[in-house]
Amino acid sequence: MDQIYNDALDLHRKLRGKIEVRAKAEIKNLRDLSLLYSPGVAAPCRAIKRDLEEVWNYTIKANTVGIVTDGSAVLGLGDIGPEASLPVMEGKAMLFKRFANIDAFPICLATKDPEEIVETVRRICPVFGGINLEDIAAPRCFLVEEALQDLGIPVFHDDQHGTAIVVLAALMNAVKCLGKSLEDLKVVICGAGAAGIAIARLLRCVGHEGTSCITVKEVICVDSKGIIHRDREDLNRPKEEILMYTNPRNIKGGLEEALSGADCFIGVSKGNILDKSLISKMNHDPIVFALANPDPEINPKDALEAGAAIVATGRSDFPNQVNNVLGFPGIFRGALDARAKRITNEMKLAASKAIAACVEDPTPDRIIPSVLNEDIVKMVSIAVFRAANMGDLTE
Amino acid sequence: MDQIYNDALDLHRKLRGKIEVRAKAEIKNLRDLSLLYSPGVAAPCRAIKRDLEEVWNYTIKANTVGIVTDGSAVLGLGDIGPEASLPVMEGKAMLFKRFANIDAFPICLATKDPEEIVETVRRICPVFGGINLEDIAAPRCFLVEEALQDLGIPVFHDDQHGTAIVVLAALMNAVKCLGKSLEDLKVVICGAGAAGIAIARLLRCVGHEGTSCITVKEVICVDSKGIIHRDREDLNRPKEEILMYTNPRNIKGGLEEALSGADCFIGVSKGNILDKSLISKMNHDPIVFALANPDPEINPKDALEAGAAIVATGRSDFPNQVNNVLGFPGIFRGALDARAKRITNEMKLAASKAIAACVEDPTPDRIIPSVLNEDIVKMVSIAVFRAANMGDLTE
Repeated sequence: MDQIYNDALDLHRKLRGKIEVRAKAEIKNLRDLSLLYSPGVAAPCRAIKRDLEEVWNYTIKANTVGIVTDGSAVLGLGDIGPEASLPVMEGKAMLFKRFANIDAFPICLATKDPEEIVETVRRICPVFGGINLEDIAAPRCFLVEEALQDLGIPVFHDDQHGTAIVVLAALMNAVKCLGKSLEDLKVVICGAGAAGIAIARLLRCVGHEGTSCITVKEVICVDSKGIIHRDREDLNRPKEEILMYTNPRNIKGGLEEALSGADCFIGVSKGNILDKSLISKMNHDPIVFALANPDPEINPKDALEAGAAIVATGRSDFPNQVNNVLGFPGIFRGALDARAKRITNEMKLAASKAIAACVEDPTPDRIIPSVLNEDIVKMVSIAVFRAANMGDLTE
Repeated sequence: MDQIYNDALDLHRKLRGKIEVRAKAEIKNLRDLSLLYSPGVAAPCRAIKRDLEEVWNYTIKANTVGIVTDGSAVLGLGDIGPEASLPVMEGKAMLFKRFANIDAFPICLATKDPEEIVETVRRICPVFGGINLEDIAAPRCFLVEEALQDLGIPVFHDDQHGTAIVVLAALMNAVKCLGKSLEDLKVVICGAGAAGIAIARLLRCVGHEGTSCITVKEVICVDSKGIIHRDREDLNRPKEEILMYTNPRNIKGGLEEALSGADCFIGVSKGNILDKSLISKMNHDPIVFALANPDPEINPKDALEAGAAIVATGRSDFPNQVNNVLGFPGIFRGALDARAKRITNEMKLAASKAIAACVEDPTPDRIIPSVLNEDIVKMVSIAVFRAANMGDLTE
C-alpha cells in the first residue's frame, strides 16, 4: 500500500495536474482566428442573446459538468480543504472524460457555508450542463443539493446517489444469486452520512411514485452512537427524516442488536468495526457489503469464514468492487443527452437496473461488473436517457 | 463580413464548444486507476494538506487561469449576459492554450453586482493560478479588479491592461519611426471606458515608482460628452481620478479642441467618429490609432489621406493590428512561471517593451508584430518573469 502512495506522489509531481484544457480546433492562420475569435465569434454570441436555449448548441455547456466541492469530506481523509481536495477532483474529471467523454472541471470552493456554496453554484452555472457535488460533508451536503434542484440542470451529489445506485445494483444481483428477493430483505446500514442516508432512501424507494420500484422489507440505520431510533434526542434533521421509513419496530441498541436476524449488512462507515461473531447473528446466507475505504469494515476473508454468502468491498483487490465510477459517467451522459433538468429517482433506479444487467450470470464473487467494462456507460446512459424522457411524458 | 459571420456560426454549431477538458495520462488498467484516483490520490492530497504551497506542485493550479466575466461588455456587443458571452470566453481559452500553453477555463457569472463578483472569485480561486477578468463593463471592472489584488494570485483585467500594454508597445515603435520621443507627446484618448482609462494610466506611468517609465507629456481624455475636465459634474469616480494626471491645462470642448496641436489620437470608442478635417488640426506627422471594432473611428485610408503618418487599427485586414493576443498569453505565462502574486506596473511596462522589441526595424506600416509571430510569447513571458522577480527583490 505504501508503494502505491509513493508511486502516486511521484506521478502527480511529474504530471503537475492531471487534466488540461485543449482547443477542439486549430488556429493556424488569421482566418481561423477571425472565425473562432474576433470578429466571427460575435455571430454565436448574438444567436444566444436572441434565444438563450442556443447556448446548448453553440458552446461547451451541453457537454460540461462542474465538479463542485468544499473539500470537507474527501475520500477517507476528512475535511482537508479545497486545495488539498483538488487531486481528487482532477481524478474525477479524468474519469468523466475517460468513461463518458464528458468535459468536467473542478470547482474547489473556499467556503463551507451551505448558503454560500448554493449561491456560488447559482452564479457559476451558466457554463455548465450539470453539477456533480463531490466530497461535501453531511449533513450540509443534503441542504446544498436540495436547494439547487431548481437550477434547471442536473445537480447530483455523487457520494450520496452514485454510491446508493451502485449498492442497489449489487444487491439486485446478490439476491438473484441467493434465490432471495429484495422485498423480503432486512438490511442494516452502518454509517449515516451522505452515502448511508442515500442508500436508505433508495432501498426504501423514498420519493418514488412510479410502480417500478421494489422496496426492501426493512432498513435499520446505525451511526457511531448505535441504532437510529425514535427515542434518540441527538439526531440531526436528515437522521430524523430517515426514521419515517427505517426501523419500523423502533429497536434500540448497537450493531449487534441491529444485525440480529438481518439479511444484509451495508457498511459505509470505517474500517474493522464488524467482527466475525456479529455475522453469525445474521440470517442464513448473509450478504456483507463492507465498503469503507481503504480498510473495509471487515476483511472479506474473515466475513466469508464467518458465513457470509456474498461479500463486496470498495477495493479493487477483492472481488465485487462497489465503485461509483460504474454509475456517474453513464448517469451524467444520459442526463446531458436528454437535457434533463434534474436527476429523478426513476433515473437513479434505471441506472441501478442497467448496472446490474451488465452482469449476465451473477455469481457470489461476480455480482458487479468490472469498472473497466466499456459497455456499462452505454447501457447506463441509455437507461437514464429513457427514464428522463419518460419523466417528461408523465409530468 | 456577413460571410465571416455565417461561416463562424456554422463552425460553432459544428464544434458545439471550442474547448475540451482532457486527461494528461491514460487510464488503461486498475493500476492506473489506483495511482491517479483512489487510493493513490490520497498521497498528493495529504502532501497539500500538510503544506498548502504544494498545491502548486501536485495539481493543475500552477498552469490554470480562470477567465471570469459577467458578460456585460462583450466585444462590440455590449451587455449580452453570461451565456451569450461564452463563445468569446471559449475563444480566449483557445488563445491561452495556443499561444502560451496555459489551461484556461471560462467562468461566466450570473451576476453583475461588483461585490458578488469579487466574493465569487474569492470562493473559486483555490483551483486557479491566475484570474483573467474579461468583458466586464466600466466602471465596475475597476472596483472588481482593485478589490481582488490581495488574492495572492495575479488578477488582471485584460480589456484594461492588455489593451494598454499593446498600445504602448505600438506607440514606442511609432515614435521611433517618426524620430519623435514619448516624453514630448501630446496624446488624445477618445473613450474613457476600461481601455481608455488604463491607457491613460499607463502612458502617464501612474503607480510606477521605478525609474524605467517614460511619461508622455500630456494626455487628454474625451468621452461621449466631450473633453474630461475639472469643471464637469457628471464624472464617475474613475473619470475623476484620471484628472489627477490628464488634461493639465484643463481645456474644454469636444474632440476638435482636444486634437488641436495633439501628436497622437488613440480611439477606443466607436466607429466613424473621427473625420478627416479633425486630423488636419493635429501636429505634423500625427499618429492615429483607430482601435474601435469592428468599425474603426476612421477608415485607415481616409486617415492617411488626411495626413496621418502612422495608422493602427484593431483589425487584421489593415496593417498594424493592435490585438490583445500580443499581450495576455505572454504576460500570464511569465506571471505564472514567476508565481507572481500580482501583475505590477513594472511587469506591464516590461511586456510593452518586449512586444515593441519584437519588431526589429519598425516602419509606418509595421510598428506591431504579427499575432502569429511565435517569438512574442517567449519574449514577453521572459520580460514579465524578470520584472516579477525584480519586484520581489526590491519590495
